[in-house]
Amino acid sequence: MKRCKVVIQPGNREIFASEGDTVMDAIRGSGADFDFPCGGKGRCGKCRVRIVGGADSPSDGEKEFLDEEEIEAGIRLACFTAIHGDMEVRLYEEKKREHKILLAGEERAVFLEPLLKKTYVEVAQPTLHDQSSDWKRLKESLALKVNPGGKFKIRLPVLRSLPETLRESQHRVTVVTEGEEVLGIEGPDTTRTMFGVAFDIGTTTVVGYLMDLLTGKEMSVVSALNPQAKFGADVITRTNFADQEKNGLEILQTAVVEAIDDLVGEAAEKAGIRRTDIYALTMVGNTCMHHLFAGLNPKYIALSPYVPVTGDALSFDAADFRIHINPAGKVFLFPNIAGFVGGDTVAVILATELDRSGDIKLAVDIGTNGEIVLGFGERLVSCSTAAGPAFEGAQISSGMRGAIGAIDHVYFGDQLKYSVIGGVKPEGICGSGLLDVVAGLVRLGIVDANGRILPPDSITNPSARPFLKHIVKNNKANAFLLADQGSTGHGRPIMITQKDVRELQLAKGAISTGIKILMEIYGIRTEDIKEVLLAGAFGNYLDPRSACAIGLLPPELENRIKMVGNAAGSGSKLALLSRSELERASQIAGSVEYVELGAYAGFYDMFVDSLKF
Amino acid sequence: MKRCKVVIQPGNREIFASEGDTVMDAIRGSGADFDFPCGGKGRCGKCRVRIVGGADSPSDGEKEFLDEEEIEAGIRLACFTAIHGDMEVRLYEEKKREHKILLAGEERAVFLEPLLKKTYVEVAQPTLHDQSSDWKRLKESLALKVNPGGKFKIRLPVLRSLPETLRESQHRVTVVTEGEEVLGIEGPDTTRTMFGVAFDIGTTTVVGYLMDLLTGKEMSVVSALNPQAKFGADVITRTNFADQEKNGLEILQTAVVEAIDDLVGEAAEKAGIRRTDIYALTMVGNTCMHHLFAGLNPKYIALSPYVPVTGDALSFDAADFRIHINPAGKVFLFPNIAGFVGGDTVAVILATELDRSGDIKLAVDIGTNGEIVLGFGERLVSCSTAAGPAFEGAQISSGMRGAIGAIDHVYFGDQLKYSVIGGVKPEGICGSGLLDVVAGLVRLGIVDANGRILPPDSITNPSARPFLKHIVKNNKANAFLLADQGSTGHGRPIMITQKDVRELQLAKGAISTGIKILMEIYGIRTEDIKEVLLAGAFGNYLDPRSACAIGLLPPELENRIKMVGNAAGSGSKLALLSRSELERASQIAGSVEYVELGAYAGFYDMFVDSLKF
Repeated sequence: MKRCKVVIQPGNREIFASEGDTVMDAIRGSGADFDFPCGGKGRCGKCRVRIVGGADSPSDGEKEFLDEEEIEAGIRLACFTAIHGDMEVRLYEEKKREHKILLAGEERAVFLEPLLKKTYVEVAQPTLHDQSSDWKRLKESLALKVNPGGKFKIRLPVLRSLPETLRESQHRVTVVTEGEEVLGIEGPDTTRTMFGVAFDIGTTTVVGYLMDLLTGKEMSVVSALNPQAKFGADVITRTNFADQEKNGLEILQTAVVEAIDDLVGEAAEKAGIRRTDIYALTMVGNTCMHHLFAGLNPKYIALSPYVPVTGDALSFDAADFRIHINPAGKVFLFPNIAGFVGGDTVAVILATELDRSGDIKLAVDIGTNGEIVLGFGERLVSCSTAAGPAFEGAQISSGMRGAIGAIDHVYFGDQLKYSVIGGVKPEGICGSGLLDVVAGLVRLGIVDANGRILPPDSITNPSARPFLKHIVKNNKANAFLLADQGSTGHGRPIMITQKDVRELQLAKGAISTGIKILMEIYGIRTEDIKEVLLAGAFGNYLDPRSACAIGLLPPELENRIKMVGNAAGSGSKLALLSRSELERASQIAGSVEYVELGAYAGFYDMFVDSLKF
Repeated sequence: MKRCKVVIQPGNREIFASEGDTVMDAIRGSGADFDFPCGGKGRCGKCRVRIVGGADSPSDGEKEFLDEEEIEAGIRLACFTAIHGDMEVRLYEEKKREHKILLAGEERAVFLEPLLKKTYVEVAQPTLHDQSSDWKRLKESLALKVNPGGKFKIRLPVLRSLPETLRESQHRVTVVTEGEEVLGIEGPDTTRTMFGVAFDIGTTTVVGYLMDLLTGKEMSVVSALNPQAKFGADVITRTNFADQEKNGLEILQTAVVEAIDDLVGEAAEKAGIRRTDIYALTMVGNTCMHHLFAGLNPKYIALSPYVPVTGDALSFDAADFRIHINPAGKVFLFPNIAGFVGGDTVAVILATELDRSGDIKLAVDIGTNGEIVLGFGERLVSCSTAAGPAFEGAQISSGMRGAIGAIDHVYFGDQLKYSVIGGVKPEGICGSGLLDVVAGLVRLGIVDANGRILPPDSITNPSARPFLKHIVKNNKANAFLLADQGSTGHGRPIMITQKDVRELQLAKGAISTGIKILMEIYGIRTEDIKEVLLAGAFGNYLDPRSACAIGLLPPELENRIKMVGNAAGSGSKLALLSRSELERASQIAGSVEYVELGAYAGFYDMFVDSLKF
């Protein structure tokens, strides 16, 4: 009878089989650790192997279990496949599955490759002839399935529970690993369940996306206000609190960690899964949020020359942070670019793939701070501006966040019209509404190029006529009345004051200056920019025409603006689903150039110029 | 003027210098991080560099600072050395220093290469033009000094204190690393102080050796009883306690850890150093001691098939175990060979270099258990016997440890004589004394080949005559009276009972059987053994003639016996001084074969044969 050489991978085991034997016979003979759950009766379809270099047509029995793609890739069932010549068989394929992530209407492909890995192993029982330790026997089974040359390590707490876990599960266990480190051991086969939550920690809002790590499916979305806001609306105030108040750093850290732990619970409940089925959390946030989450004092970010403690991606055991997920669970914190350009910007670049773009693009993420990135492919430059308070309502007389009751859009047609979130009586105005009002007032000549609200009698534009009656006096200055006390929810009028216009002017001046300086450093002109990506909640609601009308964005680019939704959140999801994406985030953080606007020669002149409407 | 290319290592920095410049000028120009403490005035001798490929004769000024060996190796002072052609200069040499460890009269060479490393670095200050994070700047300085391609990691608690440590020390700090992991950062230069304690955790006694890790010098020795003894004299009793009593494992772990923490304090005080100058502890012990120290349940070691949780070398943060040394300090636990052949045996092999011996040797370490190793070079076989209780006094009627008041040697000349430890009235007998008595009684025919103490009237050997009066009745059996109640410290007689002889018989039978089985497995005869190494406290005090007389050791080898002292402790010291030795310990643990005597065919027959005197 013909002898055939069968090479079994991984492990490069050679075995000789007789012609007509099945691949299952060869695998069993080789001593490789591989399961035939139905005993080789062709009933379970579990003994999938890949025949390297091409396989015969599958039998009808195999077709019941294999799909077209698998058949095409040479996947066969070992119990069906007959040997009739030398061959190579691969037992465990690193399965990389592609998944699409929705990115504000567009899809971004990602290979599913979760941050932690689960492997089911059947461990040899000890005997008087094999007295190897529990850990050694487990390590051997694991190496065979995951990486034959692997140097696995195990944590002490897991080691402590190993003997009982093994024996309670009849030596059949699922091993949770990160690289070659064993983080947890569960009995028996839990490989079909694995969830994670991708977080976006904003200065104001925390959002979490619960994802199925094995399918890439989004299971639930949760959000809450960042409870640190109680201790300061912006990063500078919080930094001062952390540094100067007693236990300030700990208070802020605990606040956000507890909020995240609550959101994890809420997300699990919404999705109908257990907390303990969650194994990984990813976090993106600006550098201050990154530091406060990790318990690092952000003090020196706020003092010139504005250096962070670290810009690296960090990972922690969830249990050390008292976040209640699986005991093996880990938290992965995005890396930062600089003290004021953080992991959220890295996540925006990752989600929008600016780092691989062939065209020059401009990305603007306006949250409590405004971060700007310009460039393409290998060279990206970035900066940060303190743009937020005007857009998030904090320093605007009737300002509020984009919540129910906020005027979010304003129209100057025959008469003044506005829309209110939730369709209720208005209680304030949010960033996009403010932008619309000021853009309209500038266009009508009610606000002049210097930002002054003119008195009705000096306004000459006939189109402005229907709105002159809205110009009122407020603290001896002019103001523009949007809604009188009778038409608001709280019975107080909603108006745009002269000071409100000034605040908006400062914010748009800062962003506009940032864009100009980045273009100057990059050596390009406005028309070289092929696309403007607007990220963040505010970026998604604003009217691009208004933004261009007041010069927040270059008017020439009005038709090249694209809303990319919460791209920071999308980046967080991508990294949660795929280790390659998390590693790519570190490459991005390490390569994007940061420009300190205040140190740039000519900054103040450009800023003053940019204030004009 | 001639331009010369100077390549500076590590880092491969190229710089061009003018002929006649000093190497110091080139180093300064290259931006390499290198100190000239006296400012280049030739006064301090600190700017040692190695001129790769040979150097000119040193100047008289240099000869003041350099020894012959350094001059030979091309070491020069950068501030003296003139450049007159292309050259390569190496700034930081990995300095490996050889040191000798006293091993019971002999010396064993070891390269000083401490488990943790200290590196002094001067970190760049941040500026508006270099806004890199604190960690990034530190990492860069460190990489330059330690390993230019290094991927350094830092622990979160160290990262948290980094900003203040850097600034309080004017950015001059000492970094404590293990491999590429930063464990601690201290300001400013602490590189001249580094201590460690090598422990030998015996079932009965814990010994610690405080060592200067930079010179290899032993600074103090401390010892204490293992407080776990309160919960059981031997490993089986302790295992049962750990497994079955409430919090048993924790109680035993805490007991030994606290004893070690106390001994660390005592050792530091004796040596006149601070606890915080201690950075590393090594621990050797049997597998049960290893498990109890690490908080691993030894339960399955005591149940067939006797498997440990792990046999690996383990390392922990001392702080996690509440052992008070430097906050960066670590504890290194020796690996084990099997459930009953532990890290102490690995340490004996390491210290005696059995693993590199060209001759077949037999090592016997008799403590509370008796471990035996046979072989040479790459093949060593080992086994364990429950030998101890007889030798450590636990099951002997007048038995006691080798402490003050113990009869440690007995002489049968014209009349009975004995020596007592401390020169006081005797209070009991220790293992070496017991061995002498029984060996003497066997030789005189008072004890027959079966181990029976004969009645005076059936003893025919005339040499026995002076001692017949010592044969007395005790519980209806014969006994041998060593000291009557008038001559002892406690007023009770000290005698060797029939049961005592039986206990010794079982112990010597076990060890003798172990040796025979190992020889059989190795396929050698007694005369092939070139040397017998006796380790452990008991091994050092016993009289080899007595041991051979009763057949504890093969009589043919009486003249090949060598006492190697506390070789387990020496192995612990070696690993503390040198990472290579610790790694070699793991190789030893992984390669020594273990023989389960009880599972060896013919064991019981051989054992019964071995009981005969």
